[in-house]
Amino acid sequence: MLVFVYLPTNRDTRQRLMDLAGQHELVICDPSHPDREAESQFQRAEVAFGGVPATWVARSAELRWLQLDSVGVEPYLPLDWESLGARITCTNLHGFFATPVAETVLAGVLALYRGVLILHDLQQHAHWLKNDIRAKLRTLEGASVLLLGAGSIGRRLRELFAAFGAQVITFDRAGSGCDISSTTELDAALPQVDIVVAALPDTPATRNLMNSERLSRLRESAVIVNVGRSGVIDETALIDALQASRIAGALLDVTSMEPLPPDHPLWSCGNVLLTQHTAGGTHDEMDRKISVFAENLRRYLSGEPLQHVVDWRQGY
Amino acid sequence: MLVFVYLPTNRDTRQRLMDLAGQHELVICDPSHPDREAESQFQRAEVAFGGVPATWVARSAELRWLQLDSVGVEPYLPLDWESLGARITCTNLHGFFATPVAETVLAGVLALYRGVLILHDLQQHAHWLKNDIRAKLRTLEGASVLLLGAGSIGRRLRELFAAFGAQVITFDRAGSGCDISSTTELDAALPQVDIVVAALPDTPATRNLMNSERLSRLRESAVIVNVGRSGVIDETALIDALQASRIAGALLDVTSMEPLPPDHPLWSCGNVLLTQHTAGGTHDEMDRKISVFAENLRRYLSGEPLQHVVDWRQGY
Repeated sequence: MLVFVYLPTNRDTRQRLMDLAGQHELVICDPSHPDREAESQFQRAEVAFGGVPATWVARSAELRWLQLDSVGVEPYLPLDWESLGARITCTNLHGFFATPVAETVLAGVLALYRGVLILHDLQQHAHWLKNDIRAKLRTLEGASVLLLGAGSIGRRLRELFAAFGAQVITFDRAGSGCDISSTTELDAALPQVDIVVAALPDTPATRNLMNSERLSRLRESAVIVNVGRSGVIDETALIDALQASRIAGALLDVTSMEPLPPDHPLWSCGNVLLTQHTAGGTHDEMDRKISVFAENLRRYLSGEPLQHVVDWRQGY
Repeated sequence: MLVFVYLPTNRDTRQRLMDLAGQHELVICDPSHPDREAESQFQRAEVAFGGVPATWVARSAELRWLQLDSVGVEPYLPLDWESLGARITCTNLHGFFATPVAETVLAGVLALYRGVLILHDLQQHAHWLKNDIRAKLRTLEGASVLLLGAGSIGRRLRELFAAFGAQVITFDRAGSGCDISSTTELDAALPQVDIVVAALPDTPATRNLMNSERLSRLRESAVIVNVGRSGVIDETALIDALQASRIAGALLDVTSMEPLPPDHPLWSCGNVLLTQHTAGGTHDEMDRKISVFAENLRRYLSGEPLQHVVDWRQGY
């Protein structure tokens, strides 16, 4: 059996992958420097780990299991899974980013609520302001939080905000594990909340969910966060709202263009924190990914059901 | 009965105090603009609310109850409470700042762990860095936290850090509500922890507790926080450790000098967040303080025991 790994590695992670592969053949290919042989080696593989090009998967004949190193499966959605699915099981990193993403959300919202960014700026000029800051600070205790999305990030956020004593409402069209599921209920909730956090996948039902009209329903003191897919919030309308101070601030991990061009207006919007799609990051990210693969490889080799199998009819 | 209020007020808070006083005489004096009559009016008061000068309290003859608008009671410690205590009950704002202070601690630690300050700085230069940041981020989940102090702030911090999945150890000399209470245990714990948060009062037992030797026991990746009294940490040794990168960062709400002079080295230490004694602040702070006074006034007038009575033998 050939195991094909399509990920950047270093000495330590390569050694760990070799230990995992054991007597099986292992080919490691760095996606940023694929050699000419890369696809032909992949086409001999029974197992692949990493975000291999969708075209390779479409042409594959030997592949039985693809472990993605992402949660998102968008590049593979156009493939003919009715046919491919009979041979290939695809697993993703469902839930993998929930903790780091949720911690970045809390970091950003607390930074806005507790004046951290203003204090950090004052520090650059050795400027002591104290009382003028104190009078502007807010607490999560007693705040009202609307979570868009009842997935693994939404569930982790719910636990954390609740620990701070915030009131949490979860919206999800899927209707399970949430408090509200219709857009009518969403429209009614928006004017009541202090914080909105979007952690939704990109689907026809979620695209542009937070449109101009819904953004206009928010309080002037509201803070909006997006750690899901950028298309869920109308970015142009959001910039307008921020520039006109119709909402109090935003934390955006995702933007319509990444990297964001240097002249993009989001860079200079007041009270915006741009986290540059880092929210899922941890210093031990690759090690943690390999651990997910290791557990699924153990299951694969012993014939047990794999974890986090992608459901192509649902698209995640 | 005369109620003497020694606090800055505005129209709304003055109205609220008048409503509370009802048929009792009320005198409100702004501490930043005390008039000549202020002390003589105070000396007619049975009830006082605010941080009136300790010398006035020492000279008082009518005062029966002093509601401080702080947790700290240091200015009043030198008074002869064995004698004054027979007539005057002193109450403070015990627990009042626990939630805002704990939220600022989480805001600051998460800002360091999730790269918020670096990302905010990059934003000023429209500089997209993404992956170099991701690889440096840490999570509170799995982190080891040592809390110095089992008071109301320490207890709130314990709940919040635990919600993030951090392991929490509490040190307190008092020995109740804590995991370790001897300095031998403290010395053994310091090299094992990722985060140290000091939330201790200033007493002979706590002063200089985090001295140069104890700071040297910390890991290079450790972050230290002080939201209690500044004397608990040796500030000179802390600056040395930060400048030499022997620890990873600090969040200081309190400093030996406040305001911090513009040329003080702490302003420019790397990976330090100075929150300028704002951690206890909220936009509704005065309203919340009046609510504490209101509840104690109700109790005073109906002869019930007051909340948060200062124990002068313990000094808090």
